Amino acid sequence: MKIQTLKGFRDFLPADARKRQFLVGKFREVFEQFGFDGLETPALEYAETLLGKYGDEADKLLYVFKDNGGRSVGMRYDQTVPLARVVAQYPQLPMPLKRYQIQPVWRAENTQKGRYREFLQCDIDIIGSSSPLSDAEIIACTLTVCKTLGFSKSVMKINDRTIFDALGLTKKEIITIDKLDKIGQDAVIEGLKKSGRGDADELFKKLKETTLSEMLSLIFASLRSFGWKEGVDFMFDPFLARGLDYYTSSIFELTTESYRAGSLAGGGRYDRLIGQFSGKNVPAVGIAFGFDRMLEAMEEANLLPLSPTSTQVLVTIFSPDLVGASLAITSSLRSFGVNAEVTLDPQDKLEKQLKYADKKGIPFVVIQGPEEAGKNVVKLKNMLTKDQVELTVEQVIEKLQGN
Amino acid sequence: MKIQTLKGFRDFLPADARKRQFLVGKFREVFEQFGFDGLETPALEYAETLLGKYGDEADKLLYVFKDNGGRSVGMRYDQTVPLARVVAQYPQLPMPLKRYQIQPVWRAENTQKGRYREFLQCDIDIIGSSSPLSDAEIIACTLTVCKTLGFSKSVMKINDRTIFDALGLTKKEIITIDKLDKIGQDAVIEGLKKSGRGDADELFKKLKETTLSEMLSLIFASLRSFGWKEGVDFMFDPFLARGLDYYTSSIFELTTESYRAGSLAGGGRYDRLIGQFSGKNVPAVGIAFGFDRMLEAMEEANLLPLSPTSTQVLVTIFSPDLVGASLAITSSLRSFGVNAEVTLDPQDKLEKQLKYADKKGIPFVVIQGPEEAGKNVVKLKNMLTKDQVELTVEQVIEKLQGN
Repeated sequence: MKIQTLKGFRDFLPADARKRQFLVGKFREVFEQFGFDGLETPALEYAETLLGKYGDEADKLLYVFKDNGGRSVGMRYDQTVPLARVVAQYPQLPMPLKRYQIQPVWRAENTQKGRYREFLQCDIDIIGSSSPLSDAEIIACTLTVCKTLGFSKSVMKINDRTIFDALGLTKKEIITIDKLDKIGQDAVIEGLKKSGRGDADELFKKLKETTLSEMLSLIFASLRSFGWKEGVDFMFDPFLARGLDYYTSSIFELTTESYRAGSLAGGGRYDRLIGQFSGKNVPAVGIAFGFDRMLEAMEEANLLPLSPTSTQVLVTIFSPDLVGASLAITSSLRSFGVNAEVTLDPQDKLEKQLKYADKKGIPFVVIQGPEEAGKNVVKLKNMLTKDQVELTVEQVIEKLQGN
Repeated sequence: MKIQTLKGFRDFLPADARKRQFLVGKFREVFEQFGFDGLETPALEYAETLLGKYGDEADKLLYVFKDNGGRSVGMRYDQTVPLARVVAQYPQLPMPLKRYQIQPVWRAENTQKGRYREFLQCDIDIIGSSSPLSDAEIIACTLTVCKTLGFSKSVMKINDRTIFDALGLTKKEIITIDKLDKIGQDAVIEGLKKSGRGDADELFKKLKETTLSEMLSLIFASLRSFGWKEGVDFMFDPFLARGLDYYTSSIFELTTESYRAGSLAGGGRYDRLIGQFSGKNVPAVGIAFGFDRMLEAMEEANLLPLSPTSTQVLVTIFSPDLVGASLAITSSLRSFGVNAEVTLDPQDKLEKQLKYADKKGIPFVVIQGPEEAGKNVVKLKNMLTKDQVELTVEQVIEKLQGN
């Protein structure tokens, strides 16, 4: 038996699992505040369903194989293709459909720093509405996620890809322009010239002077009505590009001041993809959060829960004859919503029990020896400060409840 | 492109996804109350890791295939093998390890009613403790889950498989005895006789008169100290069997009065499995909840959230010139924790907007026409009763907050 995880796959031990769960919980909370409902789709789909979108090279990107029945199947590569399938398969779904989806996806590509073969995808999308209010909803929801998580100074850069179309830019030129932040204005103009664009200077100037498209004006007006501030929470960026084959109009990208390794979320309007399954025209707009990046950014900004365990207190067992008392105390704490462990081996010395609490990162310990039992109190020990106070169980509950 | 899910795989549309999420949330809440920490492991493992436990026929049960690098890999079949791998791989984990794991597993077997190829597995286990207090913790946690979910009259039947060993029962005989609930005493005795047990009557009597093993006595004492009642919340059942190759001592099964289709959870002590990876002796006890059954039982007992959406209110747009006001109201509601949608297309007639709320199952609707805007109030319409009242936005928040 192999005691090893596959390359590109990760175990999340309790402390990490807790952080991830915390973030997922916040996502859900805000998504539901904005009226997005959850959707879950299977890990496996017919390979045919998945390969349609990604083309000839797809079998190198996807985990595709034959199941025991000889069917070609593939593991979920993203959440957009399954969403498109769902929209075609269940015409009874109320439209516009506001759905969120938080599930792992699998990519068979080569791994590199920060890129995994299994990672949590976290998307919100509005399907069936071409109203700019939908774009504004997606953006407002994303900004609210950032605010709720505690990021200060997050900004959504917004552009409209039809502006590039109007200027007759090629895909290659757009990719050059997208590098502005990284390589600077001179290098961009140089790059454009090299790729045969004689009017690079003029083009750059034109882009710089671009004004809002009608679509963006309406999105911006909605964002202001929602209470977001232009130039602070969101801003027009005529140089923002992104994966343009996919998007048809608005595109946007979220960055936060404290995290410079890349954008935390990105999305836009993609009116031509969802309808591919049904042959209908189905407008859509959405955003994907970079879950791992977001966690990293929160870690750096100290926005994650500090304790590596959700357990708030360990109830120790003073001696084997006092087991019953410790179990009763534990039950009381739990029934009032305090996350409590009890020492499992009554033979363990108190010192060993305290060491366990320390190693696991449990912040408090309850001790009741015969003396305390006689007075119907317990000692509550703070494992960080080593302070201990004598309290009734009710007082312990009061102190730890909702902490 | 195929507009179809694979046999044995399911989509969970918003109303179902919401119910599932509700149950997962309750599980987590209680598990953490009992000091269990989350663990996540990858969907794919080396096939070698998985096949070790399940033997020669395993490749028919598992989704096993070659990845692009030519490695034999397999999809998670249960959460016990990954747990055993994790325990061997990370010796730094504090012991005893109390972990919960709620992730999908995949089984390539044939499907049948109520059996799927993908389903959510939901386990709690305590690793590294042979104390009967650990068994009691697992049982108490399971009973608390039931209580928290609202099941009345749930009972944990408990047995000790060493009793069967002491009586020299074969595996086949144990399987016959396990059928007592279904086929009755006479048929069980008949079955035992047929399988060559001349002393079937006597054996049956012996089992009936079996008293608690020392292990069970200690578990029962702990359960009483926790506040659970013998004969009500838990009871000894010398005829309880289960998958015995796996378990080494205590075994238990949870049933609830209102649901007769089968047990909702089952588990026991399995001291010989976890250590197989490390070659060490690692005691373990745990239970697995039947997630789909549990949902079905809750549905039948009306214990699930009634609304098919988490959205509490739709803020309508009275006319295109009043979009800004509706967006501002929506923002206020959301910022006070009310889950609110706003109509996305300002051109929609009010009637169409109300129909959308109806179809989606949103319980309330906010309307603000010019008259209400002038008085700085809104109409709050109950979509079920059709009642409507005039309230300030603050009053709407007060009414819907925490609902």
